[in-house]
Amino acid sequence: MTNIEMETQTQIAACLEAMNACNKCYVSSLKEYDLGILRESIRLNREAAEICSFAASALSRGTDYKDDILALVVKACRACVAECEKHEHLHCKACVDSCRKCAEVCSPAGLTV
Amino acid sequence: MTNIEMETQTQIAACLEAMNACNKCYVSSLKEYDLGILRESIRLNREAAEICSFAASALSRGTDYKDDILALVVKACRACVAECEKHEHLHCKACVDSCRKCAEVCSPAGLTV
Amino acid sequence: MTNIEMETQTQIAACLEAMNACNKCYVSSLKEYDLGILRESIRLNREAAEICSFAASALSRGTDYKDDILALVVKACRACVAECEKHEHLHCKACVDSCRKCAEVCSPAGLTV
Amino acid sequence: MTNIEMETQTQIAACLEAMNACNKCYVSSLKEYDLGILRESIRLNREAAEICSFAASALSRGTDYKDDILALVVKACRACVAECEKHEHLHCKACVDSCRKCAEVCSPAGLTV
Repeated sequence: MTNIEMETQTQIAACLEAMNACNKCYVSSLKEYDLGILRESIRLNREAAEICSFAASALSRGTDYKDDILALVVKACRACVAECEKHEHLHCKACVDSCRKCAEVCSPAGLTV
Repeated sequence: MTNIEMETQTQIAACLEAMNACNKCYVSSLKEYDLGILRESIRLNREAAEICSFAASALSRGTDYKDDILALVVKACRACVAECEKHEHLHCKACVDSCRKCAEVCSPAGLTV
Repeated sequence: MTNIEMETQTQIAACLEAMNACNKCYVSSLKEYDLGILRESIRLNREAAEICSFAASALSRGTDYKDDILALVVKACRACVAECEKHEHLHCKACVDSCRKCAEVCSPAGLTV
Repeated sequence: MTNIEMETQTQIAACLEAMNACNKCYVSSLKEYDLGILRESIRLNREAAEICSFAASALSRGTDYKDDILALVVKACRACVAECEKHEHLHCKACVDSCRKCAEVCSPAGLTV
């Protein structure tokens, strides 16, 4: 594997981990007692999960639009971090961790969120 | 419906029509005798079809990243137009028409491709 | 177009209409005051929307698994109907209509739900 | 994690590995000299890749239709195995390995393909 192929595999793995964490947070949030304060979290979880899933597929088929799609992933993951950080639930904390890592891995210079 | 909602519905419809035309062109190209000259067309058909399908879903769920996603649609549809224009097959011509229309409808100012 | 192609186009259109109605119901439900009683509706909306979107793409690319995928659409739409029927919101009623129609169109013999 | 959660994570991982291998085989096949004999392989690669990607997303959001979706994965992966087995290309062999493993992991009793 070339360096670029390895980088792409790392980005795909980070997207899939974020997708998984977002979906777990989504499912758990829908079962919480304090559902009212989790509206935005639920919406942004699904959004980030769908974008990360699309990105993993696209990177895997060698899309011509890698940079644009990674930029979308970074935005969606950062929005999820910003919202889930407000909550104390364990699934929100796990989601913050995976989304922050994914945003780092998919940022152009690997910049920290 | 508000004007923005109507615009979004028009964009969703254009994405879905382009997805359909790209997939038809993809399936037909894979059956052609002169498969060798259709490699890029097949690849770009799938790429545009997947991006248009993702975009229609995202617009339909009220994504926060509408502008970025529409910009991606425009790029993918224009790339498909540029390639399929080179070929005389009827499915390529139909694909060019739907992709060109979709790129127009999804461009910020409705600019012509 | 052959009869089968027309039937497929009708099924694709019904899937996309159901996707759209489910996503609208999902977005609106997340903004409702009585969020607590809409948990299942929100979850089943997303589920049906994603399945209908996948099905439209798959039918459009001429999948070999049409019957299995349509059976999945029918199940997901019926589950959405059964849940959204319990609620009085306009977006739930619109969702019931589109999902019921989609389940009919995608059923093997066009059976009523 | 419960046993069922671990099993689901294993199935998600197998689907994503198969998606990746199918997409690599797809991209490489489109560049081969003997494109003509790879038509079916290209078509089935995309089909299996899209189904595996959809399945990974669906399992990750805790879909109610796990059994039906896994059955679809098994069919798509087996079809890919049956076709790619006919070819000597390294990307076909890698695809056969990942698809066969995925079909095993996602089969009800873990039966061998």
